[in-house]
Amino acid sequence: MGFESELKAYAERVESKLRELLPPVEDDATLLHAAMRYATLGNGKRLRPGLAMACAEAVGGSSEDALVAGCAIELVHCFSLIHDDLPAIDNDDLRRGQPTVHRKFDEATAILAGDALFALSFELMGRCHPDPVRSLQCVQILARASGVTGLVGGEMLDIWAEGKQVDADTLVVIHQRKTSALFQAACEVGATTGGGTPAQIQSLGSFGSLLGLAFQIADDVLNETGAPDQLGKAAGSDRLREKTTYPALFGLEGAMNEGRKVAEKAQEHLKGFENAYFLAETLQFSLFRDR
Amino acid sequence: MGFESELKAYAERVESKLRELLPPVEDDATLLHAAMRYATLGNGKRLRPGLAMACAEAVGGSSEDALVAGCAIELVHCFSLIHDDLPAIDNDDLRRGQPTVHRKFDEATAILAGDALFALSFELMGRCHPDPVRSLQCVQILARASGVTGLVGGEMLDIWAEGKQVDADTLVVIHQRKTSALFQAACEVGATTGGGTPAQIQSLGSFGSLLGLAFQIADDVLNETGAPDQLGKAAGSDRLREKTTYPALFGLEGAMNEGRKVAEKAQEHLKGFENAYFLAETLQFSLFRDR
Repeated sequence: MGFESELKAYAERVESKLRELLPPVEDDATLLHAAMRYATLGNGKRLRPGLAMACAEAVGGSSEDALVAGCAIELVHCFSLIHDDLPAIDNDDLRRGQPTVHRKFDEATAILAGDALFALSFELMGRCHPDPVRSLQCVQILARASGVTGLVGGEMLDIWAEGKQVDADTLVVIHQRKTSALFQAACEVGATTGGGTPAQIQSLGSFGSLLGLAFQIADDVLNETGAPDQLGKAAGSDRLREKTTYPALFGLEGAMNEGRKVAEKAQEHLKGFENAYFLAETLQFSLFRDR
Repeated sequence: MGFESELKAYAERVESKLRELLPPVEDDATLLHAAMRYATLGNGKRLRPGLAMACAEAVGGSSEDALVAGCAIELVHCFSLIHDDLPAIDNDDLRRGQPTVHRKFDEATAILAGDALFALSFELMGRCHPDPVRSLQCVQILARASGVTGLVGGEMLDIWAEGKQVDADTLVVIHQRKTSALFQAACEVGATTGGGTPAQIQSLGSFGSLLGLAFQIADDVLNETGAPDQLGKAAGSDRLREKTTYPALFGLEGAMNEGRKVAEKAQEHLKGFENAYFLAETLQFSLFRDR
């Protein structure tokens, strides 16, 4: 099975599990649930849960071991998109070509749906594995990846950096928090639930972090070069917001070179894993994708 | 030591621990940390962590066992206040007589500071006790109390109910989610970290839930009768928002009678605990406070 069909097979299992895990829509008093499902279901490449499942396999476990943990990671990703899209932050009307949650519903519902997805992700992570010690490790991984030194802190730095001249080191810190932290967490919870050793969890975490940086560099490049129908938003929107990006610092070709260097470093962390085909392919996909 | 000074002694330990646990403010890139500290430090009765610590003592543990878990509960409380105050939700300019976080900073910072406090609360809960099984139980308690069947779901129902005629049963559900759930969680994590039996954890949880309802009934009454300088906001603001409250359904005296009935039920759950003076006093304080 090739990479694309393997990713699709993971994604279908994730979609089906998320449908089961998200609270049901019953009446107009459960509008919150409708917003949570709208933000989560029916689209998305499910790269992060796919990574979690592949990391469980890479350490000799089964992909099923990491399914709930991977779903928890995906919910945090969806939560962060809802809040980032809000008028007070990025003020985006479209996400993957569909109205953003605050456009489809309203701002209050979007804020609370994000909060509720965040809470649900910890509820799921707290019961992601029969062994309480592993579940607790996964909770700790997720909490660190999403707080001030991770996702939320990265978004805040990203806002702070708008309109400023930031250097490459600072840009790396922003990308690491905003993007790499959750990729790293996905790999770590996958390796943890799959029964990996501390050294294996650390290696796959380092792989995930560098993969996330490569993914974000490609994202910066796509924002400059992509067609709006591929991006689901207008091209060049980073530039309009005066965001420092890899192309702004290195030029388009220089940015891709940086991305290749990061990917090479990432690849080194896969040495010693027998079952790492999907992980290596995800790295290539992340850097050379067209959307 | 009387109730007021005992609460103050708990609150001082909580304040000191929160100062240590919250991330430091270093420069203008750590504005997020400043907003988190502004929202959390320097005020608040710290009733919820006080309850957690008293519950640890009630089951034969020490108050220190529950200090970090209680701080985690308090951070979730502060997170929910920041988001509820936002323009898209309650649009409040003042909280305890001070500018709300989005007024003091801006909306983006307020949204993200709330998110970051929420993440930090799970990080702390995940290491609140040396025994990983107990820490994990506390994470699960917190996640359930803060999600769709707790705090966030209650806020959404509260918005949904604005301008609607809701009956007493529905009002109880709203209050239980929005207020009782976190009081219950505070008591449960206190009893858990203090080493309580499952039966003790359940009893103190039921006590906390009913205490929360009594607290909220008193809040509804105070919103009608309190002076603005005591409330930190304008009196009658619930009525202006067409929120259904206990006084709206039962009248002022009827509401207080309902509160007394709830408090009597709560008191019954304290039977069998030798060291429950503070808990019983918190119940009286919650119902008969003037702010």
